[in-house]
Amino acid sequence: MNTADTSTKYLVNLLMKSYQDHAEIIKVDTKIQLNRSILIDVLDKLRCLIFPGYFGKKNISSSSVEYYAGDLLEDVTFHLSAQIARALHHRANLENIPEELIIKEGEKLCFTFLSKLPEIRELLAADVSAAFDGDPAARSKDEIISSYPGLYAIMVSRLAHVLYTLDVPLIPRILTEHAHSITGIDIHPGAVIGHHFFIDHGTGIVIGETTIIGNHVKLYQGVTLGALSTRGGQVLQDVKRHPTIEDHVTIYSGASILGGTTIVGEGVVIGSNAFVTKSVPEKTKVSVRNPELQFKTEGMSQWSHEEFRQEEFWDYVI
Amino acid sequence: MNTADTSTKYLVNLLMKSYQDHAEIIKVDTKIQLNRSILIDVLDKLRCLIFPGYFGKKNISSSSVEYYAGDLLEDVTFHLSAQIARALHHRANLENIPEELIIKEGEKLCFTFLSKLPEIRELLAADVSAAFDGDPAARSKDEIISSYPGLYAIMVSRLAHVLYTLDVPLIPRILTEHAHSITGIDIHPGAVIGHHFFIDHGTGIVIGETTIIGNHVKLYQGVTLGALSTRGGQVLQDVKRHPTIEDHVTIYSGASILGGTTIVGEGVVIGSNAFVTKSVPEKTKVSVRNPELQFKTEGMSQWSHEEFRQEEFWDYVI
Amino acid sequence: MNTADTSTKYLVNLLMKSYQDHAEIIKVDTKIQLNRSILIDVLDKLRCLIFPGYFGKKNISSSSVEYYAGDLLEDVTFHLSAQIARALHHRANLENIPEELIIKEGEKLCFTFLSKLPEIRELLAADVSAAFDGDPAARSKDEIISSYPGLYAIMVSRLAHVLYTLDVPLIPRILTEHAHSITGIDIHPGAVIGHHFFIDHGTGIVIGETTIIGNHVKLYQGVTLGALSTRGGQVLQDVKRHPTIEDHVTIYSGASILGGTTIVGEGVVIGSNAFVTKSVPEKTKVSVRNPELQFKTEGMSQWSHEEFRQEEFWDYVI
Repeated sequence: MNTADTSTKYLVNLLMKSYQDHAEIIKVDTKIQLNRSILIDVLDKLRCLIFPGYFGKKNISSSSVEYYAGDLLEDVTFHLSAQIARALHHRANLENIPEELIIKEGEKLCFTFLSKLPEIRELLAADVSAAFDGDPAARSKDEIISSYPGLYAIMVSRLAHVLYTLDVPLIPRILTEHAHSITGIDIHPGAVIGHHFFIDHGTGIVIGETTIIGNHVKLYQGVTLGALSTRGGQVLQDVKRHPTIEDHVTIYSGASILGGTTIVGEGVVIGSNAFVTKSVPEKTKVSVRNPELQFKTEGMSQWSHEEFRQEEFWDYVI
Repeated sequence: MNTADTSTKYLVNLLMKSYQDHAEIIKVDTKIQLNRSILIDVLDKLRCLIFPGYFGKKNISSSSVEYYAGDLLEDVTFHLSAQIARALHHRANLENIPEELIIKEGEKLCFTFLSKLPEIRELLAADVSAAFDGDPAARSKDEIISSYPGLYAIMVSRLAHVLYTLDVPLIPRILTEHAHSITGIDIHPGAVIGHHFFIDHGTGIVIGETTIIGNHVKLYQGVTLGALSTRGGQVLQDVKRHPTIEDHVTIYSGASILGGTTIVGEGVVIGSNAFVTKSVPEKTKVSVRNPELQFKTEGMSQWSHEEFRQEEFWDYVI
Repeated sequence: MNTADTSTKYLVNLLMKSYQDHAEIIKVDTKIQLNRSILIDVLDKLRCLIFPGYFGKKNISSSSVEYYAGDLLEDVTFHLSAQIARALHHRANLENIPEELIIKEGEKLCFTFLSKLPEIRELLAADVSAAFDGDPAARSKDEIISSYPGLYAIMVSRLAHVLYTLDVPLIPRILTEHAHSITGIDIHPGAVIGHHFFIDHGTGIVIGETTIIGNHVKLYQGVTLGALSTRGGQVLQDVKRHPTIEDHVTIYSGASILGGTTIVGEGVVIGSNAFVTKSVPEKTKVSVRNPELQFKTEGMSQWSHEEFRQEEFWDYVI
């Protein structure tokens, strides 16, 4: 045995001891391991099915699109059914259920999920319109579909939400966390989101599990739709902890809206960096008061102050 | 026909119906589809050409660097010309132009773009210096080139800006959104940026399309150089909506500078979280006034307040 | 010679001139180039070793886990030793040291690093517990290990910190910047972090090089543990510039804690968006005072104001 072998052996022994000491972060002797790369590949293919011709390597003709869709659907069905079946093992009390039944259930849930693709496409077509109408920097809908991170995060969130409502464990969160890593936009798959949803820039957005968002809502980077407290930990599971945002609401960058009983009424506009923990009546503008700035120019000994003229700002914004 | 075939057929029919209903988010019967993976691969190779020896798998000797560059340039030319030609189909009113002319135009634009690489390298060499001089945590220029996300975002933005000024559709934005997804830094390819530009940390930075940034400017994480309003939507296209930042300006984390007529003068320093919607004269320090904090220690019944001693802070910072 | 050849030749000549003009951003004639894709692959395998059965494509049985670990360890040892040896060339004054000695040192440092894996696993097991106890949205520890970006950033930071303390150049920062790009969480490998560390959401977090964090600390998205000033640039290297956070501290979203002598005492809770540049005594709640909001509902001519009722908020939060 040479030195390298000895050291590897030594390290393996250390690790085996560690695996015993902390068996709670090991997963052995199960059939339930998910394969994240397969799931990401499925997600890429779902994007091709939703926006055919925009992604993937092939050009598509109107005579071939049916075969294109059929091919992709077979592939997605095969892999996603199997991953869902594995994920189902994470539901409690499945020990005595025969494996075949679980596999069947995986296939059934996958079919139900895929049959929702037309509804999801309908919502996403509205989201693309909302982005185009809301962003002067958008040159075309093609640009939005090909490159806007907000649209990608919304697409993944709409897909994951369907799996979440079907009570599929783990997979919805793996998908949305993948989108989070790509976009910096963290939408929990539990959030309920209406049509014509537009996220501009998006990095730093957090949307919590029990959030409800109406139609025609627009969010900017750094917005949090969050919980007031998580002090209760696991006791708070399934309690509504995140706000409700009604139709036609715009929330500017860095604002936080917190709390499960906080309702932001229809047509409300919330200014940058506002910190809102109570309900806001409909058609109301909300902003931080007196964000006074101070100035000191070289050679002056005093700071001068200038109150931020909020009204003027709102003239621009609203 | 077995059950699986039947279900796939059913799902395909659903989708074909959906493709008819929402044909606006489909791209068929065109030759204009871009290939994002080819574009990302081109970007990786451009990085190898800009910083030879830092990326890629080969060690390079001074005698081989010419062949290395030649190989990469041929590869980039081949793929990028073709992608540019496809992108050109997104320009309006190209129906009657023969395909060969568009292909030629793609080659010409690609050549013009690549001939700017020395200028871009010159700017990036200055950016690397600015990062090294400005960041005590930087151990070496090698560390900056190999690992700083700010430098990567700036490099991609400088490349994309050249394509943007050549009026190449879609590709500039695909490149900058790729950098956005890698770094959390969202720089629109339209932004004009001077030399010695340094971005520290960077996550959450947004720099809008019509922003102009001078030389020796330093930005921290979470800074927005944005528009006051996008209420006008597509009507505002090509209007200057984002600020002008002059030379030697530093903007600390979380500050927002908004509006197309807002000019931040030479040598200005803007403190964390300031929200600036008007011009600032040169050599001025700006900060949020009175960011008073309140404290309550266990066992006390009252909150105590302490005004944030801005002057003291500025003693440190400036 | 055809036109394409001529243009490539022209472009190569331009670049060769540029390489001469800016040789400081070229790396030729050295053996010290690191291979980032090998390093990322090593990182993926370290994750498999730390959480066996959660990642990778194979299901693992208790009888095979030893072989699984042995295989991975051999692979990691082979590649990481070589990368460390290359990185060592970036240490100063190594010109006259024989290559074999550097290779031996690479192997030695790699072995020392890998022998710390059990300690790192122990810390991470505590981090997983802290995440589960602290987040009502967490359905299971499996969900946390498979999908939480905060846990991933902490894992990479703990691994990179060991390499940092072994004075391995470049590699620690390449690893943490990879995690930064995946998660939006920017933890410098120099930061010292206790057990039961929990990061929720995480995008936009910055933790500086000389930060010290105690046990049971919880951070939310957008928190900065930063320096007051980097005006000194390279002169400040190795000076403690970032804060010390003691045990059982919670810091809510968007807060900034700045400065090398700033100590946040045991049990402190810091509210959203607070900007703290001085020490805070233990068991104290800190928040922005008077974050007053103003409201204007359609049809009203005046803005109404409402002071944010901080006490009420704290009733929820603490």
